[in-house]
Amino acid sequence: MHEIHLEEKILKKNDEIAAGTRVAFKKMGIFSINMVSSPGAGKTSIIEETVKRLGAEAEGIAVIEGDQETDLDKQRIEKCNIPAHQITTGRACHLDAEMICSALEWVMERKGLRLLIIENVGNMVCPAEYDLGEEMMVAVLSVAEGDDKPLKYPALFNAADVLIINKTDLTPQTDFDLERAKKNALKINPGLKIFTTSCRTGEGIDEWCAFLAGLTIKGPAIKGKREHRSSR
Amino acid sequence: MHEIHLEEKILKKNDEIAAGTRVAFKKMGIFSINMVSSPGAGKTSIIEETVKRLGAEAEGIAVIEGDQETDLDKQRIEKCNIPAHQITTGRACHLDAEMICSALEWVMERKGLRLLIIENVGNMVCPAEYDLGEEMMVAVLSVAEGDDKPLKYPALFNAADVLIINKTDLTPQTDFDLERAKKNALKINPGLKIFTTSCRTGEGIDEWCAFLAGLTIKGPAIKGKREHRSSR
Repeated sequence: MHEIHLEEKILKKNDEIAAGTRVAFKKMGIFSINMVSSPGAGKTSIIEETVKRLGAEAEGIAVIEGDQETDLDKQRIEKCNIPAHQITTGRACHLDAEMICSALEWVMERKGLRLLIIENVGNMVCPAEYDLGEEMMVAVLSVAEGDDKPLKYPALFNAADVLIINKTDLTPQTDFDLERAKKNALKINPGLKIFTTSCRTGEGIDEWCAFLAGLTIKGPAIKGKREHRSSR
Repeated sequence: MHEIHLEEKILKKNDEIAAGTRVAFKKMGIFSINMVSSPGAGKTSIIEETVKRLGAEAEGIAVIEGDQETDLDKQRIEKCNIPAHQITTGRACHLDAEMICSALEWVMERKGLRLLIIENVGNMVCPAEYDLGEEMMVAVLSVAEGDDKPLKYPALFNAADVLIINKTDLTPQTDFDLERAKKNALKINPGLKIFTTSCRTGEGIDEWCAFLAGLTIKGPAIKGKREHRSSR
């Protein structure tokens, strides 16, 4: 019981910091997303393709990279001429609101920023519990991981606003059933907005980018869950 | 600081329970392995192929399945006529020594058991820290996840005794460089024993099974790190 109370206390404190960060982002006119998936589901590749497609608009984009070790993903993003900030978590298995709050100064220094993409540590479990102050949580599931994952790791699919099913080019080489994956995901969270993408063939990237551009220009078309979340 | 102390305390308690479990497994003549990977790297498929190949010897095998939700993997193992015990962790992102200790009675009821395979919750980060009392930790990396993962998630590759690089059949459809992956893994842990497998083509499964059969018959050919780990 002691452990549970402590966890609740940590999450409550996290939510308080996240609420402040969300207000700060809004005041700066920044739309923020938190991308969560297993390691290697393709988060960085999706970000690379996204900034390429958004073209001129990409000038208003910045990325925060969360990793246990290395700044390999930060380097990849910077090669796309997009400013990136690295948070190395060491033993920690997820980003938390305090880490994002510590990056606020860096965010504020970026002029004309309209979209902040936070790439979380690769982990399908723990990041789901930690509100970072983002407007929208995007879960990414790779086709190679299997269509049963929404049922086995429901916390993430329940917390997310959007699901990107990525690496669809691998479908013929796997047992992945797209309709079953969607059904499983919607069973956990009927409100999920689902995109199917492949960074290798380009499938679905335009649809995802159009959706994202609509949100950053017009404000959120879907209401992020975070704001409606009752206090823990 | 308070949080760190508490974490150390939890891990110390975990190690103590694990040490007791390890002694119990040894006394029962059971060789135990702890399989850790991201969700969907193919742990369950490897277990299925392993018990099929071990044939008559498979009679002495049992599996403990760790999942956040569902007993889908337990069902898959039972279809191979192998006894399986489900641990559903709920919010917890890893198995811990206490959970395995609670399953000891179930383990003891299996007569003639020589190999216990524990399939951890799909997570490349947290399970690395929790000794379950196993003899050998086996990390599984799917080709679809990318060859940079050992560098980005070093804790698992450092804690593991064996690395199985799985889904090699997907290599032509990805940028995965097998030699680079091995080099990255050995940079983190030069003592890693590495296998490359595909459950679809059968590549490498015989080698892995021969290795495993050698361990369970003759006792560990490689010394598991767990026993040599200095107290925290």
